[in-house]
Amino acid sequence: MRMVDLIQKKRDGKALTKEEIRFIIEGYTDGEIPEYQMSAFAMAIFFQDMTQEERAELTMAMVDSGDKIDLSAIEGIKVDKHSTGGVGDTTTLVLAPLVAAVGVPVAKMSGRGLGHTGGTIDKLEAVEGFHVEIDNNEFIDLVNKNKVAVIGQSGNLTPADKKLYGLRDVTGTVNSIPLIASSIMSKKIAAGADAIVLDVKTGAGAFMKELEDSKALAKAMVGIGNNVGRKTMAVISDMSQPLGFAIGNALEVKEAIDTLQGQGPDDLQELCLTLGSHMVLLAEKAASLEDARKQLEDVMKSGKALETFKTFLAAQGGNAAVVDNPEMMPQAKYTFELEAKEDGYVSEIIADEVGTAAMILGAGRATKESVIDLAVGVMLRKKIGDEVKKGESLATLYSNTEDVADAIEKLGNSFKVSSEKVEAPTLVYDVITE
Amino acid sequence: MRMVDLIQKKRDGKALTKEEIRFIIEGYTDGEIPEYQMSAFAMAIFFQDMTQEERAELTMAMVDSGDKIDLSAIEGIKVDKHSTGGVGDTTTLVLAPLVAAVGVPVAKMSGRGLGHTGGTIDKLEAVEGFHVEIDNNEFIDLVNKNKVAVIGQSGNLTPADKKLYGLRDVTGTVNSIPLIASSIMSKKIAAGADAIVLDVKTGAGAFMKELEDSKALAKAMVGIGNNVGRKTMAVISDMSQPLGFAIGNALEVKEAIDTLQGQGPDDLQELCLTLGSHMVLLAEKAASLEDARKQLEDVMKSGKALETFKTFLAAQGGNAAVVDNPEMMPQAKYTFELEAKEDGYVSEIIADEVGTAAMILGAGRATKESVIDLAVGVMLRKKIGDEVKKGESLATLYSNTEDVADAIEKLGNSFKVSSEKVEAPTLVYDVITE
Repeated sequence: MRMVDLIQKKRDGKALTKEEIRFIIEGYTDGEIPEYQMSAFAMAIFFQDMTQEERAELTMAMVDSGDKIDLSAIEGIKVDKHSTGGVGDTTTLVLAPLVAAVGVPVAKMSGRGLGHTGGTIDKLEAVEGFHVEIDNNEFIDLVNKNKVAVIGQSGNLTPADKKLYGLRDVTGTVNSIPLIASSIMSKKIAAGADAIVLDVKTGAGAFMKELEDSKALAKAMVGIGNNVGRKTMAVISDMSQPLGFAIGNALEVKEAIDTLQGQGPDDLQELCLTLGSHMVLLAEKAASLEDARKQLEDVMKSGKALETFKTFLAAQGGNAAVVDNPEMMPQAKYTFELEAKEDGYVSEIIADEVGTAAMILGAGRATKESVIDLAVGVMLRKKIGDEVKKGESLATLYSNTEDVADAIEKLGNSFKVSSEKVEAPTLVYDVITE
Repeated sequence: MRMVDLIQKKRDGKALTKEEIRFIIEGYTDGEIPEYQMSAFAMAIFFQDMTQEERAELTMAMVDSGDKIDLSAIEGIKVDKHSTGGVGDTTTLVLAPLVAAVGVPVAKMSGRGLGHTGGTIDKLEAVEGFHVEIDNNEFIDLVNKNKVAVIGQSGNLTPADKKLYGLRDVTGTVNSIPLIASSIMSKKIAAGADAIVLDVKTGAGAFMKELEDSKALAKAMVGIGNNVGRKTMAVISDMSQPLGFAIGNALEVKEAIDTLQGQGPDDLQELCLTLGSHMVLLAEKAASLEDARKQLEDVMKSGKALETFKTFLAAQGGNAAVVDNPEMMPQAKYTFELEAKEDGYVSEIIADEVGTAAMILGAGRATKESVIDLAVGVMLRKKIGDEVKKGESLATLYSNTEDVADAIEKLGNSFKVSSEKVEAPTLVYDVITE
């Protein structure tokens, strides 16, 4: 087999065989296939796409390129959730204890990452003492005992994907549905998921800004998952504005605590119940979606969801008293209000601008070396469709410096107020199961 | 400027500016732009094409990447001819002395190259003593004096093209009209051509097998030439079967000698007159195409074309007596006839198979290290449309070994004989001037 022939085959719109895809991914991981052939191949995929079978094989070849986490010692069906990313997405913090509270095992591997705010681990570190430095056996024991634990990323997971992603990033081949879908799915499968619930964002603040593109990506991922024996479904949810109110690490933990008690922002709470119901159903802990939702609402009301969160935090060294006293988390020295300049209705909140404002304050990492300030961030006071009076607060900035000119300018630019009444955007656009 | 943005721009079907194309070619030549970005870019061009202006700028950026031959000391308009390649193409050997005989300066830079037979220099070395190791001043003096000289490739011509071609060869991006056209044109322009006549082959034995593709390539090259101030035109000629009768080095020199006297194969002679007329016209040595053709026919008849060939050979150390005594050239020890197995009409001669038969005999180089046998090759005795009787010779093999089983099998496979009458193929399909 010669790589140049396989590039030409894909370039000419033909489907590659399983053996050919394995040859490419193994050769590339080993360094036998050079970067310049792989980038031409990626560009050919950009234009010619891949069949369902090719995508599945590409995913599994990337899974097999490195370590695979074995979660078989955990009882039950391990359901993982993945979000394609957005601004103020607190769902993971809520969902982990929420579905654990109804008996779904949550064995979460999480990272820090770059972006507007920290990763899930950064956020949880706003709880004094909490840490993810636990070994695999302890991790598995904790999940079996409490139904939920979080561990840092470890091992050599999907090195082929890491290498390919780095190459795509500099060769204009990031934006390809089969490549995005196989990248995401390979990581989830290598991390041990039996079933996967995908939260594919759509709208101005999402990676996929058009609904059709978001659906195509969702279908691609669901297709891969089901093709390789992992029950997979996707919810297409709104990211035309930030989700919930909080953008910032401690602020989001507080918001998660509220939501676990049924007192969170409407959109965040509804999305958590939607995603959570599907997780419970895939884990076979409910007879129907309605039943799953009922169970989740029950543990919110009864306090069991919050108790599970406390148990989880305490088991990994965290001070669970924080849950009842959120002011024990890092607090910002200063707050500033962004005031409405006129009466009207909020018509737009540019999520990326809000996220950038939070990052400027120190909530996220611009580079790998950046140090996160867990206390700072933004609390939205109004969302799209809300009526607002001149002088009312649109959002509050939480800062540890008085010099917030840049951040407040970004935040100001992100809000648009219209004199006409505006509808709140749809939250869940579609559910993709095949 | 970032290369990844330019890749994306081309990927999305937008035209690059002159500055952007210069940035890419200069950066790539210098090694600042890595191979993996260039190959993704080439694949994006494969799918998205380039505008006329982009192609012209790409060509000139490649010309400017290295040395440029200065032929300004040669009087008159220097017209170069380029063929896209085929089997048994003896046109250069004929055209150089032919158009020189009517006063067109021919300053030919030529190579050895890989293929079914040798390059122009290999062929001419069948004439005892002939050599191309002359310096630039001598080369220019010879052209001014005799109107024709051949020099070996020297200098660092179009390094960007060399580097890019090597990359395209292993990344499935050879077959792209804008890339092929700019590659060919950059070499001709760097070699000092004022005007260019292109012989674009079409048919089973050509690089471009479909007439439409051949026309598209011709139009692309003519567009580039005229865009950058080099008068350029193209003839689309047949390569559904080998051109002329001879495939082999000394055999082709003999065929060129015949043709210069008006006694060559009909198709070769007609194509040389067609291409030659356009060369004479572009060199402004004739008032019309008809006038140009008349002049060429006159020098064939008067013997001046043959005299010019002799003068040219002698001036570069060759034994011109060969022209009157072709048997002085290397002769093969053995000949074998390929006999027709039935009565009928020749309906097909697969050019590549004939070429491969000649290469097996030793007429061409399979690798750079191969040594060419100048004596061996194939003489076709019948062409498509010819009537043939059972037992008549279809072709003669010239060999220096008695073991010709492989070569004769290839040659046998290349001929098809039909019981129905067959038309000879069209020789010149089109003339492209813009």
